[in-house]
Amino acid sequence: MATITVLLGCSVLLNLLLFVSMYSHGGWEPSWTRTAAAEAESVASISCSGHGRAFLDGSILDGEPVCECNPCYGGPHCSVFLPECVADADSGDPMFLEPFWVKHAARSTIVVPGWHRMSYEFNDGSLVSKELDAQIRRLHAAVGNAVTDGRFIVFGGGATQLLHAAVHALSATNHPLSPSRVVASTPYYPVYREQTEFFNSQDYKFEGDTSLYNNGRFSQGNFVELVTSPNNPDGKLKKAVLQGPSVKTIHDLAYYWPHYTPVPAPADEDLMIFTLSKLTGHGGSRFGWAIIKDEAVYQRMLTYMTLSTYGVPRETQLRVLKLLKVAIEIEGKEMFNFGYQTMSNRWRKLSKTMSKSKRFSIQELEPQRCSFSQKLRKPTPAFAWLKCEREEDKDCNAVLNSNNITGRDGSLFGAESRYVRLSLVKSEDDFDLLLRRMGMLVSRENDDSGDRINGILPQNETIGKYLPSARINDSHEWDSVTCRWPLEELATHLLAR
Amino acid sequence: MATITVLLGCSVLLNLLLFVSMYSHGGWEPSWTRTAAAEAESVASISCSGHGRAFLDGSILDGEPVCECNPCYGGPHCSVFLPECVADADSGDPMFLEPFWVKHAARSTIVVPGWHRMSYEFNDGSLVSKELDAQIRRLHAAVGNAVTDGRFIVFGGGATQLLHAAVHALSATNHPLSPSRVVASTPYYPVYREQTEFFNSQDYKFEGDTSLYNNGRFSQGNFVELVTSPNNPDGKLKKAVLQGPSVKTIHDLAYYWPHYTPVPAPADEDLMIFTLSKLTGHGGSRFGWAIIKDEAVYQRMLTYMTLSTYGVPRETQLRVLKLLKVAIEIEGKEMFNFGYQTMSNRWRKLSKTMSKSKRFSIQELEPQRCSFSQKLRKPTPAFAWLKCEREEDKDCNAVLNSNNITGRDGSLFGAESRYVRLSLVKSEDDFDLLLRRMGMLVSRENDDSGDRINGILPQNETIGKYLPSARINDSHEWDSVTCRWPLEELATHLLAR
Repeated sequence: MATITVLLGCSVLLNLLLFVSMYSHGGWEPSWTRTAAAEAESVASISCSGHGRAFLDGSILDGEPVCECNPCYGGPHCSVFLPECVADADSGDPMFLEPFWVKHAARSTIVVPGWHRMSYEFNDGSLVSKELDAQIRRLHAAVGNAVTDGRFIVFGGGATQLLHAAVHALSATNHPLSPSRVVASTPYYPVYREQTEFFNSQDYKFEGDTSLYNNGRFSQGNFVELVTSPNNPDGKLKKAVLQGPSVKTIHDLAYYWPHYTPVPAPADEDLMIFTLSKLTGHGGSRFGWAIIKDEAVYQRMLTYMTLSTYGVPRETQLRVLKLLKVAIEIEGKEMFNFGYQTMSNRWRKLSKTMSKSKRFSIQELEPQRCSFSQKLRKPTPAFAWLKCEREEDKDCNAVLNSNNITGRDGSLFGAESRYVRLSLVKSEDDFDLLLRRMGMLVSRENDDSGDRINGILPQNETIGKYLPSARINDSHEWDSVTCRWPLEELATHLLAR
Repeated sequence: MATITVLLGCSVLLNLLLFVSMYSHGGWEPSWTRTAAAEAESVASISCSGHGRAFLDGSILDGEPVCECNPCYGGPHCSVFLPECVADADSGDPMFLEPFWVKHAARSTIVVPGWHRMSYEFNDGSLVSKELDAQIRRLHAAVGNAVTDGRFIVFGGGATQLLHAAVHALSATNHPLSPSRVVASTPYYPVYREQTEFFNSQDYKFEGDTSLYNNGRFSQGNFVELVTSPNNPDGKLKKAVLQGPSVKTIHDLAYYWPHYTPVPAPADEDLMIFTLSKLTGHGGSRFGWAIIKDEAVYQRMLTYMTLSTYGVPRETQLRVLKLLKVAIEIEGKEMFNFGYQTMSNRWRKLSKTMSKSKRFSIQELEPQRCSFSQKLRKPTPAFAWLKCEREEDKDCNAVLNSNNITGRDGSLFGAESRYVRLSLVKSEDDFDLLLRRMGMLVSRENDDSGDRINGILPQNETIGKYLPSARINDSHEWDSVTCRWPLEELATHLLAR
């Protein structure tokens, strides 16, 4: 009798536990989403040793997607470091933000049914999600980095597509013998030239450095000036150079976020382009937006998007909406803090390493008041603009290559090959390796310095037209730096980003 | 004692039932995907009376997305038919396939974590998913509609982007004073002209109807001929017209699927373009692919994709992979059967209605042997190419408008306004309304016919240069039809698809 009573008690307790377990999530059980959700969670649980990741659409081996390893790691679970591999600081791929999204997987996941938004258009006949348009305006209001009131917004396939849509929209079409002259200030993002030359339109032509046209001598005709602020490659906040009724400007504000720069005030320009890539890190989603004052320009850009790709995919717009909600709705604007802290730490470490060097210098930028963070802060640009100071180091990237590092040659930006752009936005693995290799290069430099004093190697000299760059020092007193860049012919070749 | 024993028995039985219930799905419970999955299932359960749908990124009212109603339906749950609304048969939006994807929600859903493929590139440095490339090849092998062995594949933002990428890649760049002449056979898809003129490249120029150049008189210079097969708007299978070493062809095979046409053999052309829109119905995903023989052309198109949008979004590529798996892996190729049956039923109904008409006629196409279905079958084109037969009905779309129907004016395709393209690929609601309205128009015609005999209205006359179109009759003996189309100036204005 006592035994049966005990058994009954245990069975009832077990029932209670099973009920609680079943309904601890409010009783909801997935139905048609179950298969897809299980597959996603299964793939996410594949261990790649923290040096890679498996994806749902990865190559399949033994029935599951393989680990796709970060550069310099290998093996089936990315646990093997490959010591001979190159520290690749060429591409501006913003993988530094990936850990934030891994942490917030639950909030940032989307489920896309097979029937989601199949139609060519939204119900209002447009190609743009009104919810996403509104979210972008909320984003800029929260960050305070751009005016959107009374402006039009166009979505595009990254800033990449919007840049040439804007150039097209702003170019004179009434003067077939006088195409608009497209200019940018050296050093500038190479794609401006490459794109414009590749599409070879009758309406516009890439003419090179803005400074050639800043003295009135060549200023006949229409101009389209590309202004990148913060600039790529050197991180400086920039303003338009040319003025006048025949000048139209495109402001490429890809990096105008607290991750990379103080935000002194909301940008308020005629045509401003932003990209998701540099904000959330989702370069692979190919999403950007343009904020436009003039309605006629807006209509032309809409037409461009219609005839070019008929808009931006619906699954991308859904995903971006979710990502931007996470970006501004998590308490304390955590994504921006994460981005800024990561970049700030990287600059601190890099500056400390470079402070020991006479052979190399990196750019210095003044602190400014930031309205987002409500304090005076230093820029933390996406790239280091490295300069080889020694006379004989004319090809700086070659110097780096000899120590298994590669960056992007300065000549591609219209500057000298004495400069190299180093990407600081890649994954933690990439940055750690870059820092180690630069550290080794700097410490070898100090071994060489004895040879210099003994006359074996030439002294570091001031090169005629350059002011010596102020060096990074430990007291963090940042002097302003003025650099002049000679106009170089760009190598027109295909660049990976 | 007996009571306690009975209670114990019941409790143990309940234990077993609860265990079975908990683990009936293999014991798996969603963790980080739960929130997103619950949200998706909640939105899917919103009832829109079968005449609309709610989406995850729709406008929010009372805390949930609103129903987005099919045209001609309104009210908060799309239950109100709006009798005055226009039956819109203008756009080729392939919503007829939506019911298939609703039925197969579980298999066609994707879950996209916030960290999915953030990088600009895949691990091999490319912008294309190797798994998706392989799946496309499997698709064409399963359907037998295109040769892919030994060919290169480029992804693009719909056929829209690939068409101008192909025109760019095939155009001569060595002769700035002699741009390539881009031609297409009337009636042709208006976007060919609109795109080419809008981008206004120095490398190519739209020159109009192919037939102008088919006699050797104007055949100097390089030509790029666009061949659409089945043709848009009339559904005919077409071949290239021009021949010779200075001619390059682009085959737009958007409709070369069993839904719309017999597939006599795998297409085996130098450059073939397909779009997801017309295959699965996902026009909003902006995904197409080109199959290319020549490696140099392939590289130029890759460069175009790089400088234009830097590839196609990763979430789109993931989704397309899933959709194409469903397309060919469900038993009996159900998606293709569903597509064909739907189009076949619609043509049967439309033909029956039009068989009663003398005022209007629709195109007739010969049956052909189909290798996919292994039988002789009639074409079931995406569009009816409607002709107004009466002398006075020069503006056929105006005739339709008077009965609350609208199609796409034939002049936009380079034909006369006596022709109208009617879309047969939209939703069931759209087709049902079109059929009803056409039926009313035809029955009113029979009321008018008395007036004609009495001399009130002019007789139907044979127009000089046109052969009377063979009419659809109930015996389904399909005679071949030869039509000649005069070259008309296209109205260059923005078209919704």
